Amino acid sequence: MNNALNGKNTATILMHCPDQQGIVAKVTEFLTENNGNILYLEQHVNHEIGEFFMRIEWDLDKFAIPEDKIADYFDTLIAQRYGMTWNIYFSDQTPRMAIFVSKMSHCLFDILSRYQAGEWNVEIPMIISNHPDMEPVAKQFGIPYYIFPIDGTNKKEQEAEEIKLLKENNIDLIVLARYMQVLSEDFIRKFPNKVINIHHSFLPAFPGAKPYHSAHERGVKIIGATSHYVTADLDAGPIIEQDVVRISHTDSIKNLIRKGQDLEKIVLSRAVYAHLQRKVLAFRNRTVIFS
Amino acid sequence: MNNALNGKNTATILMHCPDQQGIVAKVTEFLTENNGNILYLEQHVNHEIGEFFMRIEWDLDKFAIPEDKIADYFDTLIAQRYGMTWNIYFSDQTPRMAIFVSKMSHCLFDILSRYQAGEWNVEIPMIISNHPDMEPVAKQFGIPYYIFPIDGTNKKEQEAEEIKLLKENNIDLIVLARYMQVLSEDFIRKFPNKVINIHHSFLPAFPGAKPYHSAHERGVKIIGATSHYVTADLDAGPIIEQDVVRISHTDSIKNLIRKGQDLEKIVLSRAVYAHLQRKVLAFRNRTVIFS
Amino acid sequence: MNNALNGKNTATILMHCPDQQGIVAKVTEFLTENNGNILYLEQHVNHEIGEFFMRIEWDLDKFAIPEDKIADYFDTLIAQRYGMTWNIYFSDQTPRMAIFVSKMSHCLFDILSRYQAGEWNVEIPMIISNHPDMEPVAKQFGIPYYIFPIDGTNKKEQEAEEIKLLKENNIDLIVLARYMQVLSEDFIRKFPNKVINIHHSFLPAFPGAKPYHSAHERGVKIIGATSHYVTADLDAGPIIEQDVVRISHTDSIKNLIRKGQDLEKIVLSRAVYAHLQRKVLAFRNRTVIFS
Amino acid sequence: MNNALNGKNTATILMHCPDQQGIVAKVTEFLTENNGNILYLEQHVNHEIGEFFMRIEWDLDKFAIPEDKIADYFDTLIAQRYGMTWNIYFSDQTPRMAIFVSKMSHCLFDILSRYQAGEWNVEIPMIISNHPDMEPVAKQFGIPYYIFPIDGTNKKEQEAEEIKLLKENNIDLIVLARYMQVLSEDFIRKFPNKVINIHHSFLPAFPGAKPYHSAHERGVKIIGATSHYVTADLDAGPIIEQDVVRISHTDSIKNLIRKGQDLEKIVLSRAVYAHLQRKVLAFRNRTVIFS
Repeated sequence: MNNALNGKNTATILMHCPDQQGIVAKVTEFLTENNGNILYLEQHVNHEIGEFFMRIEWDLDKFAIPEDKIADYFDTLIAQRYGMTWNIYFSDQTPRMAIFVSKMSHCLFDILSRYQAGEWNVEIPMIISNHPDMEPVAKQFGIPYYIFPIDGTNKKEQEAEEIKLLKENNIDLIVLARYMQVLSEDFIRKFPNKVINIHHSFLPAFPGAKPYHSAHERGVKIIGATSHYVTADLDAGPIIEQDVVRISHTDSIKNLIRKGQDLEKIVLSRAVYAHLQRKVLAFRNRTVIFS
Repeated sequence: MNNALNGKNTATILMHCPDQQGIVAKVTEFLTENNGNILYLEQHVNHEIGEFFMRIEWDLDKFAIPEDKIADYFDTLIAQRYGMTWNIYFSDQTPRMAIFVSKMSHCLFDILSRYQAGEWNVEIPMIISNHPDMEPVAKQFGIPYYIFPIDGTNKKEQEAEEIKLLKENNIDLIVLARYMQVLSEDFIRKFPNKVINIHHSFLPAFPGAKPYHSAHERGVKIIGATSHYVTADLDAGPIIEQDVVRISHTDSIKNLIRKGQDLEKIVLSRAVYAHLQRKVLAFRNRTVIFS
Repeated sequence: MNNALNGKNTATILMHCPDQQGIVAKVTEFLTENNGNILYLEQHVNHEIGEFFMRIEWDLDKFAIPEDKIADYFDTLIAQRYGMTWNIYFSDQTPRMAIFVSKMSHCLFDILSRYQAGEWNVEIPMIISNHPDMEPVAKQFGIPYYIFPIDGTNKKEQEAEEIKLLKENNIDLIVLARYMQVLSEDFIRKFPNKVINIHHSFLPAFPGAKPYHSAHERGVKIIGATSHYVTADLDAGPIIEQDVVRISHTDSIKNLIRKGQDLEKIVLSRAVYAHLQRKVLAFRNRTVIFS
Repeated sequence: MNNALNGKNTATILMHCPDQQGIVAKVTEFLTENNGNILYLEQHVNHEIGEFFMRIEWDLDKFAIPEDKIADYFDTLIAQRYGMTWNIYFSDQTPRMAIFVSKMSHCLFDILSRYQAGEWNVEIPMIISNHPDMEPVAKQFGIPYYIFPIDGTNKKEQEAEEIKLLKENNIDLIVLARYMQVLSEDFIRKFPNKVINIHHSFLPAFPGAKPYHSAHERGVKIIGATSHYVTADLDAGPIIEQDVVRISHTDSIKNLIRKGQDLEKIVLSRAVYAHLQRKVLAFRNRTVIFS
């Protein structure tokens, strides 16, 4: 659970580096010596590739190092020594998220109802769409809705406008809530591991368009949904979360779509929640999900 | 549950035909008029392709038509009229099943322990392998074990020997319990919808060799196993049963294999059981599974 | 899928009676003789108690018997003969549903977003609550919201008012979307098998209050949610749908509640959908769910 | 995966104590200072009760402290300081396990087939039963089978004999593979958190006898199995593993038993494997399961 909501001000570091002796001891020492009460520590060593991963969250209340100097100290005293790739997050800095949507409402409703209920520690200052259909939903929840229609000729220009808007609003995370447009490589490169998509199949089965039709045609007995970070390769980015539901020969394609939509919204929301909790670390097209 | 085991002698018809008015009425009339007490009736219409499917099982005790004439009567009076494709099975004729295995024991043990416990209504007169490794297991359970080593040159001849042996023993069903040899098209054509395989992935994801390695590389969060009838297209036949298990970044390839083997044996055994219960009807590379 | 939405006008009968020879033949004959094209037929015999169950849905387009006389004809010609308990539903008569809610929004949002998206064939003319908290959500979706505060003294009177309002609005179905008040026996008796509740545990484990706390205390590895028809016995009515999610020792009670709420809303919505599709038949405190 | 099998000699400590600053740093320092290469470290803080849990496994190859002195050093230098409850396990000391069974073979076969395949790092020197039925299975796998019939009068004496036999054979773990006799409190007290049972329901639902009959009677839509450490309270000990399978109104009690048996054997084997891997830590009637 989010500690900011519990009234505690915390810092979280996600890190990885080549596995070496003594990393955990060194990092925990650094925090406890400076009166940082460790709330959560989870580490994982991938012995196959010799890589060390850690998530550590600590209470800032009595921490001796001021918030704005922690990154500098940690980098100098710890990260450089071990060759770490790392990020720090503070619970008092609320992430800012944009939702991209096309014409279907189920994922959008699911996210906005959680947002309104205060379930997530996030700000959602905008919804972006290539269609006007979801504007009434945006209005219901009081969120600005921007329409950027995309056709065969204007994608580059429209994406430039979208990026401008996203940057002006300091967006940290983009959630594609069944956004049925492929983002360009240029766009994606500007938001590395910051664009979360939901694909309506159990990837890598049935990538691309109309996966429920393909699943029906193939006669599978289980269908799935997959949430992943978007990379330049379509439907091939690091997987954050997947889930499945059992189907049978009695299910028409319409039924697959209906059952699948329930999966899609839950799987996407779980992935977004894990990301917002700073529990997802992407590495070499896979993810470590801290618990 | 198997009615033969319950002391009842029953007949089961699996049928399909183009959907038409009045089929159910006609078939049930035929049975009840002749004092056939219907125990199970399940029908399904695939409205997308306009095909009707039915499984009907009835008590033969007071049935007016002798067992050896039922097929003839049913064909003349019902099946031809509706253009049915159909099969009849009698609970007093125990299916005969051969197991093909290579070097891994988990599926073999699972099948043989059910067999010994009397869980299935089946005879298993033989185990066939391309390796000697599983011979001790066959001996433990008192089942003849035949070794047909396959190399780059002798496949055709060895398969001919296998087919001869299978035919001599009136084998109705072949179960590939992690048999790591691709059967030739000629072989498969001789046993249409009578060869059940277990593939160690959630098909159509990761067909072919080393699916656990591919799943690990892709970073999926769920792995699966798929049991299907074998057709000429590798890992592409009609799916009978699938199941999945959740994994995480902490699972090494060895762990995926370990967790996957539990899936494999259960999924294969469920598929074999459904087939033996005459609850599987394959049609156009998909299956109808009656409940 | 709902046939009314597909433009077809259909009738559906749910029936059960002591198992006898020839029921299916008789019913299907009755329909086909009168030009009723059968779209779905599913029957089940519970051999343990000797009871026959059936759901049959047919196209009314060319059906020879006028809609308002079908019930009478069916009763006289079929139902009385077999001692059936039965109900008929017409796809052109949209069910009317009231939602009862207290202070939590997750189930309410899930239902209302499906309603707004046109996912279900239902009218929702009112939301009833014992608290004002959810009024803003009702307003967002444009649905009248009635508040009936319940205290230790006024339950009888308030329920009388609620029943009056429900009856005036011809409500067919009441959905308790985490309504935290026990309805009186008198109330329930007026809506037999017409009140659907969601209980936040895998019943019969953890009935009553605070099931997540109990689940946490007991150290279970899986939590669940259960949707059931409400009867006079608390949390003991016929179960319509259940589902579960895996948890671990790392999950705090807050996490159980968070994960459980996703289950609750999906399980409740699945149960309501099945009921609206006329696929649920309650009998002796259990349900038959047609597929 | 077991490191002994990988040729590495390792030590594993499972520990818990009141949560305090600096424990992880202190423990990892102790190991790395003495050239103990940490292979796996997993820690968990239960903030609700303020208890710290850790599993740490390290390579003994270059470890400076001799194997027979590690416990003493660790206790003096670390454990006493933090008030730890702890245990140490060495990968070169293979656990010794006894199986208790009555008349059903499915769990027994599952365990023995894994044992024969070398899946687990364990010795199984004996099977104990109150019935002769499973003796042939024991013989098939070459394991001594001891029969201790229990009636209303001899339980105390028979248990005394069993305990004698278990102690003489240095049994570390007792697995009740559907052993249908309640062990006395005296017996259980002699093997604290060393007796693993499989109960054929999703506990705490349906404790005691005939849970499948109760599940069928209650009309649940999902059944389960639960593996737990045995305590004096029947079916109420710390849960190690649970799993479930979906059922429907079409499933007779016989079908519930058949489907449930697959669950039982897999859930029990998962629990035993986790225990043998030293990944289970029981505390206050719950378990921490390290990954």
